[in-house]
Amino acid sequence: MTSPTTGRASRTTRRSPVAPADAGRLAPAGVAKQPGTARIAVDLLGGDDAPAVVVDGALRAVRVDPDLHLLLVGPPEAAGALIDALDPAERVRITVRPVHNAVGMAEDLTAARADTTIRAAVAAVRSGQADALISAGSTGATVTAAALGFGRWPEVRRPALVAALPAVAGPVLLLDVGGSLEPSAATLARHAVLGAAYAAIAHGLAAPRVGLLSVGTEPGKGDRARRLTDPVLSTAELPGGARYVGLVEGYDVCRGTRADVVVTDGFTGNVLLKAVESAYALAGGPPPGGAAPRAATLLGVAGTVVVCHGAASADDIASGIALAAQLWRQNAVARVAAVLARERHVRTTDTEVRTS
Amino acid sequence: MTSPTTGRASRTTRRSPVAPADAGRLAPAGVAKQPGTARIAVDLLGGDDAPAVVVDGALRAVRVDPDLHLLLVGPPEAAGALIDALDPAERVRITVRPVHNAVGMAEDLTAARADTTIRAAVAAVRSGQADALISAGSTGATVTAAALGFGRWPEVRRPALVAALPAVAGPVLLLDVGGSLEPSAATLARHAVLGAAYAAIAHGLAAPRVGLLSVGTEPGKGDRARRLTDPVLSTAELPGGARYVGLVEGYDVCRGTRADVVVTDGFTGNVLLKAVESAYALAGGPPPGGAAPRAATLLGVAGTVVVCHGAASADDIASGIALAAQLWRQNAVARVAAVLARERHVRTTDTEVRTS
Repeated sequence: MTSPTTGRASRTTRRSPVAPADAGRLAPAGVAKQPGTARIAVDLLGGDDAPAVVVDGALRAVRVDPDLHLLLVGPPEAAGALIDALDPAERVRITVRPVHNAVGMAEDLTAARADTTIRAAVAAVRSGQADALISAGSTGATVTAAALGFGRWPEVRRPALVAALPAVAGPVLLLDVGGSLEPSAATLARHAVLGAAYAAIAHGLAAPRVGLLSVGTEPGKGDRARRLTDPVLSTAELPGGARYVGLVEGYDVCRGTRADVVVTDGFTGNVLLKAVESAYALAGGPPPGGAAPRAATLLGVAGTVVVCHGAASADDIASGIALAAQLWRQNAVARVAAVLARERHVRTTDTEVRTS
Repeated sequence: MTSPTTGRASRTTRRSPVAPADAGRLAPAGVAKQPGTARIAVDLLGGDDAPAVVVDGALRAVRVDPDLHLLLVGPPEAAGALIDALDPAERVRITVRPVHNAVGMAEDLTAARADTTIRAAVAAVRSGQADALISAGSTGATVTAAALGFGRWPEVRRPALVAALPAVAGPVLLLDVGGSLEPSAATLARHAVLGAAYAAIAHGLAAPRVGLLSVGTEPGKGDRARRLTDPVLSTAELPGGARYVGLVEGYDVCRGTRADVVVTDGFTGNVLLKAVESAYALAGGPPPGGAAPRAATLLGVAGTVVVCHGAASADDIASGIALAAQLWRQNAVARVAAVLARERHVRTTDTEVRTS
């Protein structure tokens, strides 16, 4: 369980939220892509066109990243197809965990508790057999399985999925894109904190600008949840040197000129992400310099989880696997947890000072 | 108040909801663009860059449509700039209603009751001085002023704004894009009916396909409001020969392959519309054949109202004025009201049959 390349102790068994005392040790100085082996559990049965598309995507990911190891979770015959397609020397990088049951896209989320590929993938990360996992299966089932298996961070009732959208001046981080679907001020405010920390750590932004998505930029614009959240964020302290820039509009999700992080509920974020992706696909591609993986990072659970669309292509799966490997190499998820724990510690101390 | 070109009696004073008996007379056989004078009231003070951009847009609209007459509602000096820019022979097509107060974008909606340009524009249509109105001002104020001035249709508690998005196989109609912001199953189901009737009448679609926007296509996907609405629409009768195709995703808003009408709440629709528009702008334009006016039609009040974005350009204003003129020439809004009244009549009769 030690990475031979980085010499760091494996973090796979560190499932409980990171305590403040761990923060310094878990936070390397840089945020650039790091070398080192990354072992990614791949849910072979997740997605509309699984397992064929997932196998194809996994193959592409393995071929471009020599330090990538995959734990294929699913039917052995599908895994065998991938292994057969590799050079014999590369096959050592593939292991298989045979599971035959998938979570159907329309099934009840309690299916995430049964003996399914997504649950087995979570168990593999939890037990240290893999460093991170990726699934293109039912988002609800993945989020539930991850929350049950890894545990949620303190003060995070609703995990968030954060996606990077291509924009002219670098990607815009949009969250939530489907982790939780009902808008609430508490969730929106919490997700603003998660997004700020993630932007600083995973994207190396020095002072991320955080905006709250609404129907206009003037204070008071929006539905009830937005009108409640805007004043809360206006006085909130955000981690990573982030600052709240106020309400932003749909334009700002693509332009990226007003905010680096755009916060919205998971329902709106999900339909928005898919609409913008298809608009770019129809118009011949995103703006130059704006490439971003078509996959989302789950924030709020004590494990590294990447989710792809159900309609993911092989390239999307490959980009999702690459994202999972990058997050692991950056130690991004544990570092975000550490920042939140530290902020929580600071807030507690402040309270103690004020009340003493 | 008689249109000299079409010989039809003016409909401007027909403010109350159209009774079933009027339906036949109000529904011409064709839906193609009709000739005839259209008199559009233009809110000179609505929009972020008003009045300059509105004046510029109005000028462009006048120059391309010789049968267009404008009633400029706003400061006389702004109206004078437009008149001065026209050939003397064309100036007869412009009239001015001097008003100096605008509704601020952040003001309370009760401002729609005060002596503002939007209220004066509504009054002008109501009194028969204009056939339709356009504003790029606060959407909330425009919807409120229109509901107060024209009255709402029966069984429409929340008016909807419907926008046409460019798509490969012809525009996709998206509603609501900002008429009402809180999602509810009753409003979503009612808006599906409005959208179906509008697609049949204003866009001449023979059997419009109506989809409900959600985070996946399988039944049960979505937030609470969507999960309640989907089964209701599955058994609902829709006007205009429309059929409900079930849940659709963000992709379908741009592709247009699964639905002609996409129903969502006004919050989601508003941010979605702006995000897709800016994605196309960044990527070099919408797909071929997909041009659509950057303006929305208000459905649910007894008057023809077109709303532009606050950030509308002069071309956007011009396309909004052209849309208002087209809707008036098609008699579209009154015909949608007539279809709904007829459906209501049918439903009432059915009930009587069942209970007798």
